[in-house]
Amino acid sequence: MTAPQTLTIPALTAKIEAIFQRARFSAAQAAAIAPVIAAGERDACKSHGVYRIEGCLRSLKIGKVNPGAVPEVIASEGSIVRVDAKGGFSPLAFELGLPLLVERARTQGLAALVINDCFHFSALWVEVERLAAEGLAAMAMCPSYATVAPHGGSAPLLGTNPFAFGWPRPDGAPYVFDFATSVAARGEVELHRRAGTPLPEGWAVDAEGQPTTDPQAALDGAMLTFGGHKGSAIATMIELLAGAMIGDLNSVEALDWLGTTAVAPKHGELILAFDPARFAGGRRDPLAAAELILSGIEGQGARLPSGRRRAARVISEAEGITLSAAEIEGLERLARDGLAAVP
Amino acid sequence: MTAPQTLTIPALTAKIEAIFQRARFSAAQAAAIAPVIAAGERDACKSHGVYRIEGCLRSLKIGKVNPGAVPEVIASEGSIVRVDAKGGFSPLAFELGLPLLVERARTQGLAALVINDCFHFSALWVEVERLAAEGLAAMAMCPSYATVAPHGGSAPLLGTNPFAFGWPRPDGAPYVFDFATSVAARGEVELHRRAGTPLPEGWAVDAEGQPTTDPQAALDGAMLTFGGHKGSAIATMIELLAGAMIGDLNSVEALDWLGTTAVAPKHGELILAFDPARFAGGRRDPLAAAELILSGIEGQGARLPSGRRRAARVISEAEGITLSAAEIEGLERLARDGLAAVP
Repeated sequence: MTAPQTLTIPALTAKIEAIFQRARFSAAQAAAIAPVIAAGERDACKSHGVYRIEGCLRSLKIGKVNPGAVPEVIASEGSIVRVDAKGGFSPLAFELGLPLLVERARTQGLAALVINDCFHFSALWVEVERLAAEGLAAMAMCPSYATVAPHGGSAPLLGTNPFAFGWPRPDGAPYVFDFATSVAARGEVELHRRAGTPLPEGWAVDAEGQPTTDPQAALDGAMLTFGGHKGSAIATMIELLAGAMIGDLNSVEALDWLGTTAVAPKHGELILAFDPARFAGGRRDPLAAAELILSGIEGQGARLPSGRRRAARVISEAEGITLSAAEIEGLERLARDGLAAVP
Repeated sequence: MTAPQTLTIPALTAKIEAIFQRARFSAAQAAAIAPVIAAGERDACKSHGVYRIEGCLRSLKIGKVNPGAVPEVIASEGSIVRVDAKGGFSPLAFELGLPLLVERARTQGLAALVINDCFHFSALWVEVERLAAEGLAAMAMCPSYATVAPHGGSAPLLGTNPFAFGWPRPDGAPYVFDFATSVAARGEVELHRRAGTPLPEGWAVDAEGQPTTDPQAALDGAMLTFGGHKGSAIATMIELLAGAMIGDLNSVEALDWLGTTAVAPKHGELILAFDPARFAGGRRDPLAAAELILSGIEGQGARLPSGRRRAARVISEAEGITLSAAEIEGLERLARDGLAAVP
């Protein structure tokens, strides 16, 4: 019998990396993907943790993702850095583009990283944190696959379309948020389905457009955006900017191309990076000015976003990450049998 | 007795312009301000229409706004164009910066217009529409004054912090949204107070942090953000990007500096402009790709944002704008007595 197990972050990362290599991903791809999944577990963000691995591998098993993709910088001029992921997962393309984006943001004050033709499963907070660590503010967004109805509509058309933002803080963890523009992330609906628990009211409609709390009916129907027409407008903006504008697939096209929501979607991603010092233009210290706002929020007892993730990270770094017996068994099966272990 | 009156758009614009000149605003300031207020009436966006005039003039009466401000381009390098509004209202500064922003967005692919030290009363959709007319996508945001509690908090700290987005459509009106990140715009709460009607549930808390539907209690307490913690996160992002980052006031500072919410707030504004052709990089036609998304929304009977404004505009352009007897009387009083007519 397999038992629950506690792993250090590097040990879990190595285990995930080995799984991707065993499944015939290139060493470079595996090395870029593994830390992103490990970061999900480290921060108790289970919907982006080891649970993602099967979907990633299934993308390969059905012949969609390119396991040996070598991303390429297509253009880096003006304020736009463009990386073609060549049909691989996004993290390696992000690693290639990151230093160029940072350099460009510092030179121009504002710059964008466009990633095209990537499979996307990673949390965006991982990326905006990297930019915040460079002293840059960042916005990141991408479509997904059409599972969300626009406000006032009844059929899937928008993706869960995550939107993330990061702001560097001088003494410690950055201000970071990252949320689906749907009421919930699709991963959360999937976790409810697996757990057999009903969804909260207001998350979804069934295939006939009627409100439902049944996770399977929601997955067969459409999820709803957060915040009514305002959330729907933001989700639409993400389709336009991070789909149409960057010359990549929208969420309907991504789903049509895949034919399933059981694997990571393929599309593009848009990341904007802002250099606060350049934007402030010497008028005042932008980071110190920001602290007035952030400490004001904390000062009235309201929590900043990402606080739970940050707390989980402290524990993971000190004590390691504990995975359940089922999770450990799944990882061992994948490490042993590779793609053959993927249903 | 004054009667209701129907005016052409140019006639209303001229009337507003004359009021600002009568109140000792410079011709250039008055000429930039008037069309923005007239556009509010034209599009049946009453909260940004003639109702705003008194607040604008009160900003002068209490010695805050600079009526003859001559905005100046402080810097235009890399991707950032910075205009100092010199303590005047924002529209003239926007007019000065707009051509530079357009040129920079076309050259760099992505550019930002920072407006500092402006009094702000105008709707942001007016601005993103101007950029869409140039074939550019645009995002605009600004703080306001602290009247909104952060999610989980109880005291005013955030502004109503509007967020607007525009996308050019090849055959007609652009896709545009513009909303307060509070549940409602402060102007709407003020209109409820004037009309003596209760607020919908969920808009606000009173000074003790308790939910309220009384408009005055809401104005004395705090409004709430739309979409719970997600809307609160976006409102915070706007404080950081369009306040701290650009070296300007946040919503608490704007209120402290003014000492009242009865006049337009002073702070800065951030506008981002994207050239879709540059972002698409020849991969596909970005505007045609966008039409797939937008026609998909309309195709399932869901309405696009700004539809009501657009419909009102068509009527205003054909039939003119009808103002109530009270509105006409107010305009005539202001035209005759200038600042003396402002309470």
